Amino acid sequence: MGETRFDIVAMGDAIVDVIASCDDEFLDTHGLPRGSMQLLSPEAADVLYAAMGQAREMSGGSAANSMAGIAAMGGKAAFIGQIADDQLGAIFRHDMRAFGVDFATSALSDGPPTGRCLILVTPDGQRTMNTAPGASHELTAATLDRDLIRDSAILYLEGYLFGPDKPRAAMMEALAIAHGAGREVAFTLSESVCIAARKEPFLAMIDDGGVDLLFCNEDEAIILTGLATLDAALAQLSAKVPTLVVTRGQAGALAIENGERVDVPAAPVGKVIDTTGAGDMFAAGFLTARAKGHDLKRCLETGGLAAADVIQRYGARPDGDMRKVVGL
Amino acid sequence: MGETRFDIVAMGDAIVDVIASCDDEFLDTHGLPRGSMQLLSPEAADVLYAAMGQAREMSGGSAANSMAGIAAMGGKAAFIGQIADDQLGAIFRHDMRAFGVDFATSALSDGPPTGRCLILVTPDGQRTMNTAPGASHELTAATLDRDLIRDSAILYLEGYLFGPDKPRAAMMEALAIAHGAGREVAFTLSESVCIAARKEPFLAMIDDGGVDLLFCNEDEAIILTGLATLDAALAQLSAKVPTLVVTRGQAGALAIENGERVDVPAAPVGKVIDTTGAGDMFAAGFLTARAKGHDLKRCLETGGLAAADVIQRYGARPDGDMRKVVGL
Repeated sequence: MGETRFDIVAMGDAIVDVIASCDDEFLDTHGLPRGSMQLLSPEAADVLYAAMGQAREMSGGSAANSMAGIAAMGGKAAFIGQIADDQLGAIFRHDMRAFGVDFATSALSDGPPTGRCLILVTPDGQRTMNTAPGASHELTAATLDRDLIRDSAILYLEGYLFGPDKPRAAMMEALAIAHGAGREVAFTLSESVCIAARKEPFLAMIDDGGVDLLFCNEDEAIILTGLATLDAALAQLSAKVPTLVVTRGQAGALAIENGERVDVPAAPVGKVIDTTGAGDMFAAGFLTARAKGHDLKRCLETGGLAAADVIQRYGARPDGDMRKVVGL
Repeated sequence: MGETRFDIVAMGDAIVDVIASCDDEFLDTHGLPRGSMQLLSPEAADVLYAAMGQAREMSGGSAANSMAGIAAMGGKAAFIGQIADDQLGAIFRHDMRAFGVDFATSALSDGPPTGRCLILVTPDGQRTMNTAPGASHELTAATLDRDLIRDSAILYLEGYLFGPDKPRAAMMEALAIAHGAGREVAFTLSESVCIAARKEPFLAMIDDGGVDLLFCNEDEAIILTGLATLDAALAQLSAKVPTLVVTRGQAGALAIENGERVDVPAAPVGKVIDTTGAGDMFAAGFLTARAKGHDLKRCLETGGLAAADVIQRYGARPDGDMRKVVGL
């Protein structure tokens, strides 16, 4: 992989997180399942925002968080995502560049505003996400930088962006460009991919050999395959993707690659403040270690350390010296 | 004071803080004196922002922070300040209302964007503030809600807003309205008031009996009076204002009222994370205790507890159960 300009280029939601604390009763009142992610209409987002307490804003987006993490751990990362030409878009772009992530997708000057994700954090640190995607779902194939994709060892696709038609079409085109250039394609599942309407095209994509490296958590593996046990789900998925990486929360993580399975325990964690970004930082750690040529076990452990770090504070992105945190 | 609708109404900067960590070298490179506040042109703000690391955004503004604090401690607070009709303005308004602060000043639909303050926090927790005031300095007397001012026991004026002509004129008119209705006027000095050009009109205002309650820190007291020692400065200022309240950092705080001087030590503090908002929360605690009829010592202690709380985390506003923190 050493000959490419970037270790990885990601396509994902370009959104700003709006993070507020709340109690469990607030989630009940607003009918929000704990720990879930739902898409909100602009109107519903305004209603929920008005009801939320004081908030802090931080750039987010699952794959964007991962690219920030990779850059913070010393990897070479780029990002493709759609912001609008507005203040939140400027914040998103600033923060990507502040990490050293290449992010050059032009801002939309007409259309919906930059997307935001209203994140409610309960006292146990669990996050419930309510996304008003805005401009983020306006990403089209026309905006793709083909040379950038060809010049990145891995194309990383975010599940959240697999639902809406335009970004999904852009992803499929990017996948063809990447494979055409002999690059690997990684995909991170997200709850929303497992919803019936999105499940079929996704399963078709992996059946077609579209995914070289699949990230998911154990619930997603089970829901996606519709099988009763994790082992059955792992068997089915690992037969379809060369590298399968599964996070298991407090039980750690595992990977199956070319028939070899490696399990690692979770990294030690103090007080959990906000679980937002745990999966994103896990993927970032795994991929950075992989880009540096480490074995599967070390990749899983690096992911675990990065995830443990991010859940001990508010926000989904690295802070401080991440190379030291993960020992890379 | 019990007969008014609000305990306090403040006029101050309506800005969103953009908070990033940096090292001391960064401050040197950009010629920023540690712990200072400077006003930036929009162009200079863009240059500094581009150089800053990843940031988090949180509503700010000195007096606005204090009103949020007062509301969080159970006081009835209102705020007058100028935002623009943009995303940062919407964030500012949301956060004021989330605390229960009355904030109804109309957003400007043409003119500069909502102000922002680029706050750089060094590893010792010290903050250096770089304000691009934007719409905030467009506040005019025409926007004042006279009934609101008459219906608030205290009018609280922020020094940062005393510099620019339009907001200063608005403040002077508000002061006349408040005194005309028999209300008290409080003023919080800020470094910038002590600059030569602003010092004279301010001293004229206190000589005219415009200020009933003055908040400042010991440096500001000395610079404002031009006297050599704190005692001399206190003697001069306390002769001009009925209630003088002076914060002294780790040395605590003191107040002089009708010839009586009360000193209190600083509240205990663990690790200082970010000193932004210490003075704002001190004033909030003092004024909330005062609105509830407590004596000078208790007011100072309440201010100290509120200040100690805010410097142990990022951001300048209350978080969690502030009534419990200060015991009100």
